[in-house]
Amino acid sequence: MSATATVPPSTVCDSMPAPLNPSTRVLMGPGPSDVHPRVLAALGLPLLGHLDPEFVALMDETMELTRQVFRTRNRLTLAVSGTGSAGMETVLVNLVEPGDRVLVCVNGVFGGRMVDVASRCGAEVHRIDRPFGEVFDPEEVREAVAKMRPKLVGIVHAETSTGAWQPVEEIARICHEYDALIALDTVTSLAGIPVEIDAWEIDAVYSGTQKCLSCPPGLAPVSFSPRAEEAIDRRRTKVQSWYLDLTMIRQYWGGDRVYHHTAPISMNYAYREALALVVEEGLEARWARHAAHHRVLRDGLEALGLRYVTDPAHTLPQLNCVYIPEGVDDLTVRRRLLNEWGIEIGGGLGPLKGKAWRIGLMGHSCRLANVTLLLSALETCLRDRGAVK
Amino acid sequence: MSATATVPPSTVCDSMPAPLNPSTRVLMGPGPSDVHPRVLAALGLPLLGHLDPEFVALMDETMELTRQVFRTRNRLTLAVSGTGSAGMETVLVNLVEPGDRVLVCVNGVFGGRMVDVASRCGAEVHRIDRPFGEVFDPEEVREAVAKMRPKLVGIVHAETSTGAWQPVEEIARICHEYDALIALDTVTSLAGIPVEIDAWEIDAVYSGTQKCLSCPPGLAPVSFSPRAEEAIDRRRTKVQSWYLDLTMIRQYWGGDRVYHHTAPISMNYAYREALALVVEEGLEARWARHAAHHRVLRDGLEALGLRYVTDPAHTLPQLNCVYIPEGVDDLTVRRRLLNEWGIEIGGGLGPLKGKAWRIGLMGHSCRLANVTLLLSALETCLRDRGAVK
Repeated sequence: MSATATVPPSTVCDSMPAPLNPSTRVLMGPGPSDVHPRVLAALGLPLLGHLDPEFVALMDETMELTRQVFRTRNRLTLAVSGTGSAGMETVLVNLVEPGDRVLVCVNGVFGGRMVDVASRCGAEVHRIDRPFGEVFDPEEVREAVAKMRPKLVGIVHAETSTGAWQPVEEIARICHEYDALIALDTVTSLAGIPVEIDAWEIDAVYSGTQKCLSCPPGLAPVSFSPRAEEAIDRRRTKVQSWYLDLTMIRQYWGGDRVYHHTAPISMNYAYREALALVVEEGLEARWARHAAHHRVLRDGLEALGLRYVTDPAHTLPQLNCVYIPEGVDDLTVRRRLLNEWGIEIGGGLGPLKGKAWRIGLMGHSCRLANVTLLLSALETCLRDRGAVK
Repeated sequence: MSATATVPPSTVCDSMPAPLNPSTRVLMGPGPSDVHPRVLAALGLPLLGHLDPEFVALMDETMELTRQVFRTRNRLTLAVSGTGSAGMETVLVNLVEPGDRVLVCVNGVFGGRMVDVASRCGAEVHRIDRPFGEVFDPEEVREAVAKMRPKLVGIVHAETSTGAWQPVEEIARICHEYDALIALDTVTSLAGIPVEIDAWEIDAVYSGTQKCLSCPPGLAPVSFSPRAEEAIDRRRTKVQSWYLDLTMIRQYWGGDRVYHHTAPISMNYAYREALALVVEEGLEARWARHAAHHRVLRDGLEALGLRYVTDPAHTLPQLNCVYIPEGVDDLTVRRRLLNEWGIEIGGGLGPLKGKAWRIGLMGHSCRLANVTLLLSALETCLRDRGAVK
């Protein structure tokens, strides 16, 4: 290993780097989604310092807008300085201590990731499983919670690897019956379908910026209920991650403004602008837009003979996971969509690798023009391969 | 706690958020520094997907440019998806396992942070201390290393809290004599003063983007020597942070392109452009520019009667930490600089809080016009308070 752990001198970059000139894409994969021009413009604004009174005011505004989008009044609501996976890790490292029992509901890649992260916190992790594409029934969660009596139950609202839409309200009620906290992954759901943190009594939630919020990846909105904050206050051990330790981070975002780390200024500009766009559109109107364009897409995909991985009753409008037809090569089609039309769709993950496509309709990407373009391009690709009559 | 862990319904944000319109600043604090217009323009470019062949090519180019700026041929050289502190945590969580002995040299806030982070990894942490503003002598490090025989020695090259410039070449040699790895904090040094990772035989190094690279905060360049990679390969335990686990991240940045987390696309555009600017200017020319403008600033500050916290032999050109004159109020002056001229300088950290200012001359902020402006504005503030005759 050691002998090859260096690389030969560069021949490529000795000359001046070429100008940065990325091709124009239509991002219809599982994220990132297309970013609204106003958000791109916000990214390009000159920087304030991270302790500048104007930036501090922007953080306050961002926290308030985040509460509105999560539909919560939780005080501890902010954006972690990392991507959605850092949000997952933030929730788990702050709520879980070594030896704590954690139950994770796994029906896709991101539930599996929760198991991995919780294990690294030293938790005693139990899992219940459903095949990729399916959702959990509240009664099977009740059975597991009653038997294991976990401190925390982790579940994914919108499974990015399958497009499954997990109802969670009843499951949250069951967790509380047994005095367990519930942590919810809303990376792909937030601002695309209803997310009601207070009404559903969710204790901890994380999301990402690059899905239905249509902001570039780089921040992870999180929120913690009073019960979850109490659990953090009652910790017997230090949070194992300094970078994600909310007992310190909340002093920077909260009243004291104690310096912790330097917040990503430009990303926070973009995030604020993306939130403003959501509030201006209105959450209900945004959910309706995702639902409406999804119906057009679904009808079109089914007319092309494509079959969904998920049951129609539990299919996310913003993530359409469909089986690749017999005899059609995954990469050939995706490469052609990208090279000829500039359209990105996603491949399958885990057991669906090579077997399914994931078509995103998220945030600013969720427009009728994109649906029509994709259906037309996909029809051409499939017809050329004889998969459509 | 619980009763107050929610906030009342918003009155501020029920109306539409106002347009984002940050004031223009001259950033001369300890970072972030002013961002070059070409980097701001790169930030505003439309997004590629994180697995797009063009983005993968950009990652390759970024790795190569990062090697050039670190002066290394280390294969494992990339940008972590978090700020500089995430870089520190990445180095420590990957190289340290529970029970490992770690020695940290502490002469400021960021050495102290290394102690905290290493402790959270379960390390047996030893520290040697120097007062804020001083640097370590190689012989005292030798003594500590010989006695403690640590697996890893952590030291800060450019202490952002004091402006102290720590020579490290001889210390690295001593570490290797005793078979210890050396980890170097170059958050504030990289691209401002010489950083020679291969020539000095540094095993692990991290930096931030918002200092002398003049990119917004949000990424942490890191690099690991073959010896350090071997240490990672020999781990008996999983890395405690999933998000910062290099055994997985290197598969995404390296040949296999295995999906780990969604890279912050826009920040990587900006980082690539910031690196291109460094390479175009040339590292030696950039170091010389920092040194030259520092001399003008130093002469001017001393002419105003201000005294450096650090010895001239160990003063960073890019971070000038000076005592606040008797009878002058810290916040009053800093607020006036900000409100009247738009200039940001930093306050003191730790024991220097309220007692010192930190004046940055980093990257794109390091221009003669800024030096002249600051000196003139500062003279006005001090004269008005009778501190300058």
